[in-house]
Amino acid sequence: MEAEVSEVPEPALYMLPVGISDADPREVLPERALRLLREIRHFVVEDLRSARRFLKRCDRSIDIDSLSFAVLNEHTPLSDVSSMLAPLRKGEAVGMMSEAGCPGVADPGADLAAAAQREGLRVVPLTGPSSILLALMASGMNGQQFAFHGYLPVDEEARRRALRDLERLSERDRSSHIFIETPYRNSKMLAAASEALRPDTLLCVATALTDPVKESVKTLPAARWAGCQLPKEPTVFIIQRP
Amino acid sequence: MEAEVSEVPEPALYMLPVGISDADPREVLPERALRLLREIRHFVVEDLRSARRFLKRCDRSIDIDSLSFAVLNEHTPLSDVSSMLAPLRKGEAVGMMSEAGCPGVADPGADLAAAAQREGLRVVPLTGPSSILLALMASGMNGQQFAFHGYLPVDEEARRRALRDLERLSERDRSSHIFIETPYRNSKMLAAASEALRPDTLLCVATALTDPVKESVKTLPAARWAGCQLPKEPTVFIIQRP
Repeated sequence: MEAEVSEVPEPALYMLPVGISDADPREVLPERALRLLREIRHFVVEDLRSARRFLKRCDRSIDIDSLSFAVLNEHTPLSDVSSMLAPLRKGEAVGMMSEAGCPGVADPGADLAAAAQREGLRVVPLTGPSSILLALMASGMNGQQFAFHGYLPVDEEARRRALRDLERLSERDRSSHIFIETPYRNSKMLAAASEALRPDTLLCVATALTDPVKESVKTLPAARWAGCQLPKEPTVFIIQRP
Repeated sequence: MEAEVSEVPEPALYMLPVGISDADPREVLPERALRLLREIRHFVVEDLRSARRFLKRCDRSIDIDSLSFAVLNEHTPLSDVSSMLAPLRKGEAVGMMSEAGCPGVADPGADLAAAAQREGLRVVPLTGPSSILLALMASGMNGQQFAFHGYLPVDEEARRRALRDLERLSERDRSSHIFIETPYRNSKMLAAASEALRPDTLLCVATALTDPVKESVKTLPAARWAGCQLPKEPTVFIIQRP
């Protein structure tokens, strides 16, 4: 694989997924994404260090110093985004990589895709791991109607209200409602949810997805989660009325 | 690859993605999913013919007749679902495959995952192509807050109301709203949306995702879509207020 001659990819903004655990990238990314990661010369990345490390893990023979990197994170002024498409305007492929998972979903990559769409430039999404989608697949919850809400409020009272609002939405149409939390607050969130929700509301906790050892996806009535502790691993929560 | 000795996968219900276009499965599925497709002996599938054909496309050397298949589709009585986990209760891996894309999302596979979760059986989701997620990634729309609504009503007046309801939801919090349509109604849906929505509401049309030739993801103000025709290919629509 490493001796392969690289081709020049067609000009487009490629939305390139990266891993969401310590799993070998070659286990969780399809060949088309791995090939583009080797061939693209211009990257826009959410975090420079993790992007360079990920490229090296995909293919140790990649010459990182020959590549160009621009950083797009939550501190980047929106007015800087359009210039990151300069190589593409000259006919060269640009790859967008977020810190974990699929760019454009729960990260600033969407701003770059929006800029490309406004100019009528081609945007190509690549298949890769998404903790939101993987959690939903294994939860057994409603995949016909669902919503992703990002982070819920940290304030205790506001969080309780938010959880009950989602529960009410689900009561109406059995939709499932997905949210995330920063890993060190996982156990607090679980305690808050098991208290705030009705005892029979289903609560899915999906932790360390794609990790060959630590991955766990469990759906239980909210009351059954009382007193449980969660590891400080990336976690997705989903609730649904039964 | 085809001469490789198969291992016995750990007992679990594996949610196995399949392709969503004519692309080579080895281009769009990661190695871990491809390996499990070769190793699992018991499958639950949404459509028997397409599942068998997909397995053959993944690996021509697979002996299809040595495998067991149960069918789970929208006509399957819910009372029949639990028995499909019988091999897993005896310690053997079961693989769930839907007709296209990721099982459990917009298909009946969620019922099988729910049955496994109720019994405390392990459920493992595998990475693969999801038209919903791929469309969102490339749309440039809000990936921090989004909802999937499945199919909108076919009746003209009800559909117009549904489109305007989604537009109003997006007006409130800039969330993006995703829906699908059966391919032969794509152009009708596009005409309805470009009429019903406000002219500056963004409308993304994502067609033939992962198809190396026919794929297209375009986001334009609703008014700009007026008079456009769409091919009869699987299509995802997303709307968002600017």
